[in-house]
Order: sequence, then structure tokens, then C-alpha cells
Amino acid sequence: MNRLNEEAREKYFETIFKSLKNKDKNVFLEYFLELHPTDQVELFQQLYKDKRPMFYEYLTPEQFAEIFQGLEVEEQKEVVKELDKTYAASMFNHMQADDIADFLGEIHEPHAKDILNAMEKEEADEVIELMSYPEESAGALMTKEFISIKATDTASEVMDHLRKKGPEAETVYYLYVVDAKDKLVGVVSLRDLIVAQLNETIENLMSTQVVSVESHTDQEEVARLIKDYDLLAAPVVTSTNELIGIVTVDDVMDVLEEEATEDFDDFTAAKGATDVNITSFSAAKRRSPWIIMLMFFGLITAGVIGTFEETLEEIVILAVFIPLIMDSAGNTGTQSLAVMVRSLATGSFERRGLLHTIKREFGTGLMLGLICAVVLMIVIPFLYPEGGVILAGIVGVSIFLTLSVATIIGAVVPVAINKLKLDPAIASGPFITTVNDILGLLIYFSIATALLDYLPR
Amino acid sequence: MNRLNEEAREKYFETIFKSLKNKDKNVFLEYFLELHPTDQVELFQQLYKDKRPMFYEYLTPEQFAEIFQGLEVEEQKEVVKELDKTYAASMFNHMQADDIADFLGEIHEPHAKDILNAMEKEEADEVIELMSYPEESAGALMTKEFISIKATDTASEVMDHLRKKGPEAETVYYLYVVDAKDKLVGVVSLRDLIVAQLNETIENLMSTQVVSVESHTDQEEVARLIKDYDLLAAPVVTSTNELIGIVTVDDVMDVLEEEATEDFDDFTAAKGATDVNITSFSAAKRRSPWIIMLMFFGLITAGVIGTFEETLEEIVILAVFIPLIMDSAGNTGTQSLAVMVRSLATGSFERRGLLHTIKREFGTGLMLGLICAVVLMIVIPFLYPEGGVILAGIVGVSIFLTLSVATIIGAVVPVAINKLKLDPAIASGPFITTVNDILGLLIYFSIATALLDYLPR
Repeated sequence: MNRLNEEAREKYFETIFKSLKNKDKNVFLEYFLELHPTDQVELFQQLYKDKRPMFYEYLTPEQFAEIFQGLEVEEQKEVVKELDKTYAASMFNHMQADDIADFLGEIHEPHAKDILNAMEKEEADEVIELMSYPEESAGALMTKEFISIKATDTASEVMDHLRKKGPEAETVYYLYVVDAKDKLVGVVSLRDLIVAQLNETIENLMSTQVVSVESHTDQEEVARLIKDYDLLAAPVVTSTNELIGIVTVDDVMDVLEEEATEDFDDFTAAKGATDVNITSFSAAKRRSPWIIMLMFFGLITAGVIGTFEETLEEIVILAVFIPLIMDSAGNTGTQSLAVMVRSLATGSFERRGLLHTIKREFGTGLMLGLICAVVLMIVIPFLYPEGGVILAGIVGVSIFLTLSVATIIGAVVPVAINKLKLDPAIASGPFITTVNDILGLLIYFSIATALLDYLPR
Repeated sequence: MNRLNEEAREKYFETIFKSLKNKDKNVFLEYFLELHPTDQVELFQQLYKDKRPMFYEYLTPEQFAEIFQGLEVEEQKEVVKELDKTYAASMFNHMQADDIADFLGEIHEPHAKDILNAMEKEEADEVIELMSYPEESAGALMTKEFISIKATDTASEVMDHLRKKGPEAETVYYLYVVDAKDKLVGVVSLRDLIVAQLNETIENLMSTQVVSVESHTDQEEVARLIKDYDLLAAPVVTSTNELIGIVTVDDVMDVLEEEATEDFDDFTAAKGATDVNITSFSAAKRRSPWIIMLMFFGLITAGVIGTFEETLEEIVILAVFIPLIMDSAGNTGTQSLAVMVRSLATGSFERRGLLHTIKREFGTGLMLGLICAVVLMIVIPFLYPEGGVILAGIVGVSIFLTLSVATIIGAVVPVAINKLKLDPAIASGPFITTVNDILGLLIYFSIATALLDYLPR
């Protein structure tokens, strides 16, 4: 189970594919079992489907469990259908409880119950416990394979304990200290333990101020804690401080990536459609409610222009600048939105204060507006001489006002959404853009209508 | 140096603030030095500027070094100006080489040279080495405080070595095995070491197939490696496989966050302006070139409408649907873009294939286009009866074609940019939106002009 560099890995893959073709089980096992689980998973994913049954034949359920837990849920569903019942039951018995819980949470309940019934009682209970925690909570993310020790143990006793229990635990690098009632009272790092005298008691080595998370804590908060304090794991406790599991740094990295993807989805109102593992149809189904809703907003924008139809009829050239106003409003608003979304995600508000950032954005908006207005007032008279200086003035002033308003909208809306705990898609780029479009066009046509008599025609 | 829970932390902060007010050095030190470095940094950031000199007075340069390395570069620049020369020199001598290199890379060269000259030779050389690696490379990210051992060592010898060197090293959990020429030959985890017999040699314990990265490898690639293989650290080697440093998982988490922010910046063409630590003016300066460039694109869009001025003069109501076409094109294109940006970032193409994702997007675009077209063809005759069925038809068909094209543009452009290694801002939301606006309006007005004679007026 080693990691390999790119070149060596390619060679291994080739040999393994060839062994499958030749139905040479010995060569297959010799090379395949030397691969790191991550690479085993990748090789399995590259296989043609008709070769998969050979995997189930050559590998024991225990060996295949490693691969199964590395697959995406959609792939897992496919694979389970291909497995023999006894093989599947045995495989689940060898999987980690948190991975089983993740999978069972995604399939139909009766089917999940069948699987649980076929599993060993103790393991099944653990899975049921993990499934009882809310999605995206510390409880759902944690593993129960942690090492707990007593404050009265000596360093050498703990080392002996580690020698026995070490291979099974998710991490041996943090050892959590519990009292007789399993309440968390301290933590010792393996580093501290190694540096210590052998007869030193844990009580003297442990740090008693342990930051723990409760089982219902949001996974993003757990990730932030582990990241900010450079931890390798964080303990999960009940409301009465009983230690029930740990969340490790590798799970947290997946969370950070998931959350970044979620932010992107929210940002573009794509509603989970950035998941490349779903079909065109599911993607369209998820996205269409938003696209249609946004289209109706587009009809409101249309209504705004409709209101000014008389103005437009008199001066058709005004229509030419509709895209310019809309694009500029959308672009600046989206940038401000991005600033706020990232600040919320990285928690930088705690340091700098909310108002500070909003003020900054507004200042930026004023300056961008001024620059754009000046540029347009110089350029437009050359491009559209028929409009005269007054047309350039209308567009310039409109741009200035629009950009100032757009940054405010882009900066304030996500914060408001966050405080009011509304659907974050309301703070998405498309939504903000549409609102800013409406405001921008209102500003533009109002000014143009007011100055209609001064426009040359 | 413990971690505290929220409530306890607030109490500590209050006591420390009060001690500063009372100029009570003893109470200050007693409480402050018990805080975790991350909390020490946060407390310092919450201080009023006029209280900062007390910090420099109460803390030794060594103690303050911990805080300084946790600050943002802009804050570090401010602080250095406030420090006495000798104090600063001593502080730099106590900082980690990689943190110093990060800071010096951001300030003026003559000033950086002064600081290097004031430092101890050995430490300064290390900093200069780190600064010589390209930005965002493994070399720039790594630390030189790692533990290397020999294959001929026994487990107990290594444990003794750890007891001495452990406290200084960045991590003791992976021990890298080098030969006489410092070439990387294997790795042993502390977990394996603990489980092993004391007289076992490292040669028998180590894994010889170590994935390492070269010093010039991009930090994002290093992050992906550590994340995919659930590692706690990765070794950095020269082109001749000489071990020169390690990158640890905590640095990698910062990289993942940085890269997600960069993706957001690129996505919105905000060009680093999502950094909340810069002023309005710097933010405007960074963003304005793009906003102005995009405005000129807006003028091209204006030109498109200008071309169809005659059509518009005949049927002014056509202008009403400009925002609808633009918004829908922008929204769908941006969603496809988000799908590709995230897929590129999370490396999911390697598994599913590029063409698969592009095809999926196109399929989604066709379906979304069809749904929107049907909705519009039902709604428009009611909202704008003066246009008749033919107007609804023109808008409906235009939306269908526009959305199909928009998803393709949104999906293909970022991939092309990535392959051609162009500025990723070209694949930003605003850019894609503008291109899609132009195409959408071209489609819409071309169809309308072709069918002009059939439109009621």
C-alpha cells in the first residue's frame, strides 16, 4: 500500500490491466495490492464495466471494501447492484462506520435496512448512531475509531496501549484523555508523549483546555477550527461533554473543498449542478427553477423598458446603451458579492468588522463609477456624434450612479441573507445582477426621460 | 499555549485588555502567554493601535515573533515600522524561515536586505534559499524544519533522536529516510515506528515508494497530492532527489483556501480585490482595468444593437426583450463556467473525461433552452398582445438558441484558457457574460429582422 510517482503508477496500471485481460489472478493480486488505496480506487474507476466482476472474484470482500469506500455515491449504487448478497454483507462488515453511514443515507430506506440487518450488530449500531446526526454536522463527519486514555496512565502504559490499538485507530497522533464517565478532560499529542519520561503520568503531560465541538456543530465550523488552530483532529462531544468521536484533518480538507463548491453553486445559483457526476437531465432539473425564476425577473426588467417606451420611440439610440448599463451594473455588483462571499467563508469579518468591508466596497464603487463615467463621456461623442454631448452626459452620470448602487447591493445583500438565514441563492451572482440591471435601467431611463427635450433628434 | 472554548477565550481577552489598561505587566503575561498563538494573534489584531507599543515592551522578541508570523502582510508592514531596530532583528532571528521569506518577498528590496543583514548568517541563508523559489511553488511553501533519519538506524535510536529533535521540527509524524548524499530513499510514519520492535532497523520498516514533489511544483498540485492521499506532509526534493524540505498539511489547507479565493477572483475578474485587507483605492485600481475593458465590450454590444437600429425604429417593443436575452445568456453561461472551474479545481476531469462534461453541459443547455422557450411563448402573448404570436415566437426561438450557445461558450472557454495557459480572467463570469450577450443579441435581432415583415405594428 504505497504511494507511487506518476510514471511508476502508469506502469503498475498497465500491468494490472494486462493481468485482467489474461485472467492472471496471481499477477493481478501481486501488483494491485501494492497500490495505495487512492490509486486502487482510481484504477477501478478506469475499468470497463465488463471487467468489474473479475474484481469481485479476485478480491476478498475485505480487500474490496477499501475500494468501495473511495467511490462516489453514484458509483457505489451501481456496484452494489452487481455484488452477490453475501459478498456485499461481508464487505460492509469490513467498511468504516462513517463511510457506510454516508452511503446508506443516499439510498432507499428499505434497501438500507436490508444492509443493516445483514451486518454484525455492533457495527450496525454504530452506523445507525452516525446516521442519526444531521447532515453536514460534526456527528455525521466523525469517526468512532479514536484512542482514549486515562489521566492516571503513565507514558509507558500509553505507549504499550498504542502498540496494540494503533493500527486500527484513525489517528494516533492525538490521544484524548477521559474520566471514568467518558467525559473529555484533556489531550496529549504523541509528540509530547515521546519527549516525556516513561514513568510520567498523563495528568502531568496533558493539556486540560481542549477545544471540542458538539455533535450538531456545522461541519464548516469544525473545518474552520481545525484550520485556524493547525490541528490534526478535533474531538466531538455530547452536550454533557462525553467523548463520542473525532473529526480528522483529511475529512476536513474534503469539507473545505465541498464548501467551496457549494459557495460556487450558490454564487451562480447552479443549485448543486456543478456536480459533474449527475446527468444533463438532473442538472437541467436542478437549475431550471432558478433560470425560469430569473427569466421572470428578466420580464420585470422588460417591464421597466416598456414603461419608457415613449422615450425610446423618440430617441431609439438610447436602446444602444442598455447592454452597457446592464453589463457594468452586473459586473461591479458581482465583484462586490464575491468579496463578501469569500469574506464570510474565510471568517475575515471577525477580524475587520462588517461595516469596514461594506464601506470599502462603496468607496470602490464610487471610484470605479467615476473612472467609467469619465471614459464614457470622452468616448461616446466620437462613437455616437448624433447624440451630442448631452447623450454622453446621460450615459456617464447613469454609469456613475449605477456602479455606486451596484456595489452597495452586491455587498449588503449577502450579509443580510446570511443574518436572516435565507436561501443563499438569493445572494447569487445572477440574482444580484438582475436586481442591479433593473436599478441601472431605471436610473438611466429616468435621467434620459427628464432630459428628453435637450437631446438632439 | 492552549486552545480555549469561545466563552473562556472571551474572559481571557477581557482580563488581558484590562491588564493593559492598568499597565499590569504581570497579569498580562500570566494570561496572555497561556493563549494559543492563533488566539494571541487575534487579540493583537483587536487592539487599538496606541496599545501596541506596550506589547513590544512586555513581550520578548521571541514571544512576539509568534504573533508577528500570524499577521497579514499589510499588518506586518505596519508593525515593523513601529518596532525598534534591535528588537526587530532579534524577532526575525526567532521566526521560522518560511514566514520571514513570505514577508520579505512583499517589501522593498533594500529594506529586505537590511533585515537579512541584521539576522544570523545561517538563518539568513535559509531565508534567501526559500526566497529563490518561484511564488506559489512547493519550494516557497516548504519548511526546512523536518526530521531525516538513516535506513541503518534502529527504531529505538530514532525514538531517542526524536526526543531531542522533536520539539523543533514542524512535524514528527513522518520521518524521512535519506542516504549518505541526502537523497530521499523512504519514509516511516511515527505510527509504524511505535508499533515496531525497538531493535528493528528503519530499512525494514520504511516504505520505499515515496511520492515527493520537486521544489518548482505548483502549490495547488502539492495540495491536491496531500489531500488525495490523506497525507500529513509531503517531502520536497531537488531534481536529483535530494531532500530539501517538507510541506505540511496545515500549510496546504491555507493553500486550498487561497486557491478557492483565487478561483472566485478569476471568476468575477476581481483580480485580487476580494482581499479585504486592501483599501478602496487599491481595490478600485486593481479592478478598474477589467471593468473598463468590459465596458468597451459593452460598447461592442451597443454596436450590435446600433446595427439593428432600423429594425428597432420600426418595432420599438423589441428593445423590451434585450435584458431578458442578455440575462438568460449570462446566467446559463455563468453556471456552465462554474461547473468547469470547479471541475478543473477539484481535478474531477481526470476521472470523468473532459468531453463528457462538455457534452453534459450542452445537453443541459438544450433542455434549459427548451423549457424557457416554451414558458416565454405562453407568457409573452398575454403580456405584450400587441406583438402577436410572432413576437413570442421570435423571443422563444432566440432564447432556445442563445441558451444552447451560452452553455457551450461557458464550458469550452475555461478549458481552452487552461490548455493555452492564458490569463484565467478571460474565463471569468463577466467576460463570458459579455460574449454571450453579444451572441444572444445577434441571434435575437437577426431573427427579428428576418421576420420584420410578419410582425404586427
